[in-house]
Amino acid sequence: MKRDASTSYTLGELAERIDARVVGDDTVRVSGLSTLTDAVSTDLAFLANRAYLKYLATTQAGAVLVHPAHGENCPCPRLELENPYLGYAKLSRLFDPLANQASQGVHPTAVVSPEATLGERVEIGAHCVIEAGVHIADDCVIGAGCFIGADTAIGRGSRLHANVTLYHGVIIGERAILHSGCVIGGDGFGFAHDGKGWEKIAQLGGVSLGDDVEVGSCSSIDRGALGDTLIGNGVKIDSQVQIAHNVQVGDHSALAGCVGIAGSTKVGRHCLLGGGVGLSGHLTLTDGVQVTGMSLVTNSILEPGVYSSGTGSMSNSQWRKNAVRFKQLDEIAKRLTRLERDIRDA
Amino acid sequence: MKRDASTSYTLGELAERIDARVVGDDTVRVSGLSTLTDAVSTDLAFLANRAYLKYLATTQAGAVLVHPAHGENCPCPRLELENPYLGYAKLSRLFDPLANQASQGVHPTAVVSPEATLGERVEIGAHCVIEAGVHIADDCVIGAGCFIGADTAIGRGSRLHANVTLYHGVIIGERAILHSGCVIGGDGFGFAHDGKGWEKIAQLGGVSLGDDVEVGSCSSIDRGALGDTLIGNGVKIDSQVQIAHNVQVGDHSALAGCVGIAGSTKVGRHCLLGGGVGLSGHLTLTDGVQVTGMSLVTNSILEPGVYSSGTGSMSNSQWRKNAVRFKQLDEIAKRLTRLERDIRDA
Amino acid sequence: MKRDASTSYTLGELAERIDARVVGDDTVRVSGLSTLTDAVSTDLAFLANRAYLKYLATTQAGAVLVHPAHGENCPCPRLELENPYLGYAKLSRLFDPLANQASQGVHPTAVVSPEATLGERVEIGAHCVIEAGVHIADDCVIGAGCFIGADTAIGRGSRLHANVTLYHGVIIGERAILHSGCVIGGDGFGFAHDGKGWEKIAQLGGVSLGDDVEVGSCSSIDRGALGDTLIGNGVKIDSQVQIAHNVQVGDHSALAGCVGIAGSTKVGRHCLLGGGVGLSGHLTLTDGVQVTGMSLVTNSILEPGVYSSGTGSMSNSQWRKNAVRFKQLDEIAKRLTRLERDIRDA
Repeated sequence: MKRDASTSYTLGELAERIDARVVGDDTVRVSGLSTLTDAVSTDLAFLANRAYLKYLATTQAGAVLVHPAHGENCPCPRLELENPYLGYAKLSRLFDPLANQASQGVHPTAVVSPEATLGERVEIGAHCVIEAGVHIADDCVIGAGCFIGADTAIGRGSRLHANVTLYHGVIIGERAILHSGCVIGGDGFGFAHDGKGWEKIAQLGGVSLGDDVEVGSCSSIDRGALGDTLIGNGVKIDSQVQIAHNVQVGDHSALAGCVGIAGSTKVGRHCLLGGGVGLSGHLTLTDGVQVTGMSLVTNSILEPGVYSSGTGSMSNSQWRKNAVRFKQLDEIAKRLTRLERDIRDA
Repeated sequence: MKRDASTSYTLGELAERIDARVVGDDTVRVSGLSTLTDAVSTDLAFLANRAYLKYLATTQAGAVLVHPAHGENCPCPRLELENPYLGYAKLSRLFDPLANQASQGVHPTAVVSPEATLGERVEIGAHCVIEAGVHIADDCVIGAGCFIGADTAIGRGSRLHANVTLYHGVIIGERAILHSGCVIGGDGFGFAHDGKGWEKIAQLGGVSLGDDVEVGSCSSIDRGALGDTLIGNGVKIDSQVQIAHNVQVGDHSALAGCVGIAGSTKVGRHCLLGGGVGLSGHLTLTDGVQVTGMSLVTNSILEPGVYSSGTGSMSNSQWRKNAVRFKQLDEIAKRLTRLERDIRDA
Repeated sequence: MKRDASTSYTLGELAERIDARVVGDDTVRVSGLSTLTDAVSTDLAFLANRAYLKYLATTQAGAVLVHPAHGENCPCPRLELENPYLGYAKLSRLFDPLANQASQGVHPTAVVSPEATLGERVEIGAHCVIEAGVHIADDCVIGAGCFIGADTAIGRGSRLHANVTLYHGVIIGERAILHSGCVIGGDGFGFAHDGKGWEKIAQLGGVSLGDDVEVGSCSSIDRGALGDTLIGNGVKIDSQVQIAHNVQVGDHSALAGCVGIAGSTKVGRHCLLGGGVGLSGHLTLTDGVQVTGMSLVTNSILEPGVYSSGTGSMSNSQWRKNAVRFKQLDEIAKRLTRLERDIRDA
């Protein structure tokens, strides 16, 4: 795989893909994407945030994606559309060297069970191991060094980057993107205490991912104890995320880096969990809940909205004084109540 | 490895394994485990939590594990015992498709040093790399793509799932379960500052895990700087956990997902660390300490009990107002004291 | 790779390497490093912290690294120097069994593209995959099972431990140490919302690491959306760290375990981030900022110094009472203000 710098597109071609209006010469060609300030004459840039409007007039870009209201000072041809950021997203894939490569087929060093079934144009990288009963649908790319356990199924058009591990009995939907080092289907953390130590509970469920799911590097999604861990359609999961057994995440929710969700918690649809958020087990978060970074949620949230915990950061010397007072807070509140009463009664 | 759905057990056989009493026909056969509400007629269900008692009378299960006091409304044969949850745990392994499979031996693509020694019935998966001086005891299963560094030893009956990495000089006890993506024996984070930058301190110690240890997906346990990082017997470690150099974790402690323990801290026996808990370095936690989720512990804990830090979560608008006040907390406390004095002196 | 216990050094040889003064017999040989209390007669120990001075007189070490002011009661030959801890760091590499091994060359099971270029004495472990356009400079060691994507470059003297994943278009400087399970160059977490769900933004930038960078086990550094994620010279990154797209980390900063940095944030030079610290996106931290463990930073920090957030840990019963009051804190502050006014006006 080498970047093919020769791929370029006319503004007319690009406009058609995103239903934009070309203002200027629609035969101008661009071969890269960039920001307004970094762009060179062969790049398409975009203006998606009013804060960057000041850079428009001096951009060196060959063309710019821009909202119709902001096109005025554009020094080059432009593509006008209502949502330039979405337009940028949609076009970005054209400039990705990994996208749209022809399938390399099955590498001779891959170990593929004769009882696995592969669809059309499936690529299996070097040193992969594919066990019996696996089904990989058409147009999937399985990167080098991946392990796919028995009876696992992967929907069409999915990509596993190098060194992904899928345990047995996992279901991956269509167009999934799974990043290196992620592990799907490892055992949930289930033990019974026998009075002396821990007796393992075999984790007999699976994991099921809907369509259009992305999972970041080094994230883990554990298999269910009984019944499956369920990730809905269009769910986006960042790197270093931990999803415990029997968690459910609703469609189109997004989980930022380092999120941890404990067992059996249900996250609704269109939820946003900020980086490092922790959810206790057996909770329900309704649709449309947002939790800000590094908050801990220990109770169910039944109303949509934004939720937080923690304290803001401050200088350590200031923090020490206040943190000591936090330990006295109940006492402070009681003293205040007494004082109020004393004054009222005086 | 394919699920063998034909394995089934009579209630009499199961009762014997967990010392339970069969009430009803002990020749009834079950081939799966399930919850009361999801069970079908070939499943064994269990009632381990009084909150689910309401589902007992209508379960479709073929049989139920239940406390003698709760058997009354059971519509099917039952296995009575004092601790149904422990009984469920003990039987769960019978229904695990990975358990009790015959060894597949050493895969031809595995690279095993002639200076490594393998016990009886050891299975080495495809594309494993086993270096010189490694000793793997009887009945171990090493999943595909594992790397085992020089002079590492693994006790009998252990299982490494696919893509586990053990550095050199690591000791793993008997019956370990190490999940995919976990890394044991990477360098601890040790540097000396020379006034301009960081001079690396070679990490010359190892890691030693006792018997019956489980380590979750993508967790890391670093090797000691001098002397070993020590994990006791029966310790259970969830996914995404970080254990730094020269940490000691006592027997039968359990560490939930995303826990991080800094260097040289000693955690006692039978401790429970909730998800995302952080322990600073060079601390001592005595036996029987529990720390609730996402708490940060910066001082040693010498009394058993439950410990916490942080604030509960709330709506962001409510949180903003309170978090601002946290920064004024020392001042608030001082104002209160002044006011009390003024009133007393008035 | 086997530990070669026969390597030993005279005190004279060691003194020369670190510019120390030998007090006693400089022909004494040592073959290991240890602490004062654990050392045996063939070990070199060190006294770097006054708290351990009490162990000096009774150490069994063959020799001790010590500050000139503390040598008095040393029962054995000693190496005197101003910074014994730095001396220990510099000598530690001599005793590392992995250091200074002769290159094993390219393992026959490695899959190396004919379009990759390898320098002198490069070692490529078993089952590695090296794609087209990769350049690996002299004296690099690539551990077993590593994947190196197209067009990635690795500077001389770098070591990748087993099962490291580098995506395409990544740049690694000289003398890097990358630990097992780390992933560099996975996609940043970038999506545009189309009103119904998430449209992926192809991550077209790369990742660039300076010289002398170390990255711990299972850490992830994501590639830039446009432009590169940049890690400076001498930056040390612990295990389980997440660095998002387009983050910049300045020279000689150190990031402890479980740190998470959100997109486009710039960390200055000589910063220290404690374990579990979280930085929101699009912030700037100036040079010389320290953030204590598990603090969340949501605003830029423009003055050097130590910063913190959170509350100290306490017993759960004490914590519950105080945490409830935290939710009333704004109300408490207002009541106090009213009371002050009432009294003043009385």
